[in-house]
Amino acid sequence: MFELHPVLAADSWYLGDFPLSALLLSKDANYPWFILVPRQPGVEEIYQLGEQQRAQLLEESCLLAEVLQQVFQADKLNIAALGNVVPQLHLHHIVRFNNDVAWPRPIWGVVPPLDYSESQLNQSIELVLGALSGQGFRVLDGDLPG
Amino acid sequence: MFELHPVLAADSWYLGDFPLSALLLSKDANYPWFILVPRQPGVEEIYQLGEQQRAQLLEESCLLAEVLQQVFQADKLNIAALGNVVPQLHLHHIVRFNNDVAWPRPIWGVVPPLDYSESQLNQSIELVLGALSGQGFRVLDGDLPG
Repeated sequence: MFELHPVLAADSWYLGDFPLSALLLSKDANYPWFILVPRQPGVEEIYQLGEQQRAQLLEESCLLAEVLQQVFQADKLNIAALGNVVPQLHLHHIVRFNNDVAWPRPIWGVVPPLDYSESQLNQSIELVLGALSGQGFRVLDGDLPG
Repeated sequence: MFELHPVLAADSWYLGDFPLSALLLSKDANYPWFILVPRQPGVEEIYQLGEQQRAQLLEESCLLAEVLQQVFQADKLNIAALGNVVPQLHLHHIVRFNNDVAWPRPIWGVVPPLDYSESQLNQSIELVLGALSGQGFRVLDGDLPG
C-alpha cells in the first residue's frame, strides 16, 4: 500500500491527487515548489514504473509545469527526481525567478527554508488549484492548509 | 536548425544520438554524469515538446537511466532538467554512490569538476555505449574522446 514518506509528509502540504501522483507543496516560501509523488509503493526511479504509469507521470508533470509557468510567470522551471535522502520516487517542480535567492544556482543547500505567511500560502494554493481544476486533479477533502 | 549550446559543447563530450536526443558525457569525473539534449531548436521546457517528442524523450531517459544504474551499479540516479544558466532543454542523468564526494547532497556547487584520466574516460564510455548498442543509439562517427 502506498504511504507518503515521513520526510515528505513533514516538509510539505498534501494538496490532492492526480490520477497517478499526489501533489505536494513544499514548506519553503523561497520558491513556489511543488512535488509529484506517484502513489506506487516501492518505486525509486522513473524507469521502474510500468509503461502506462511512466506516460501518466509525464502527462501530470507537463500539465503541472505548464500551469506553474503560467500562474507564476516563471522565468524557468527546475524539474528533478533526486531522492538521495528520500528514496520514494518524487519529482520536484520548482518555479524559478531570475531574482530569487538562489538564482541562477540550483536551490539545494543555498538558503534555509522560509516560512510561508498565511496569505501567501493561500494565494499560491488558490492559483495552482484554480488552474488545475477540471483537469483530472482531485483536491484533498477537508484539511488543506491555510 | 539544432545547434548544441556552447556551454554544453565546452563542458561535455558528444557521444552520439538517440532518435530524439544527443547524448553527452559531462567533463566531471566526480560522477558518471550523462546529459540528454533533444535536438529541437528553441525548446526550454519538457512540456514545450510535442506529444510524440515527450514520449520519445521519456523512453530515451528511461533506457539511459536503466543502463546507467546497471553498468555503474548506482546507489541512486539523479535526473534533472534545470537550465537556469543554459536554457536549451537538457536532462541530466547523474549516477550517485553513497560514498561519492557530494552524497547525499545534490551535486551542484559542492565540489569543482574533476578531470578524467584517459583510461577512466575510455572505460566509462565503453561501458555505456556497449550497453546501449543495438538499442536505437547511434555512436558519433570518428571523434569520440579517449
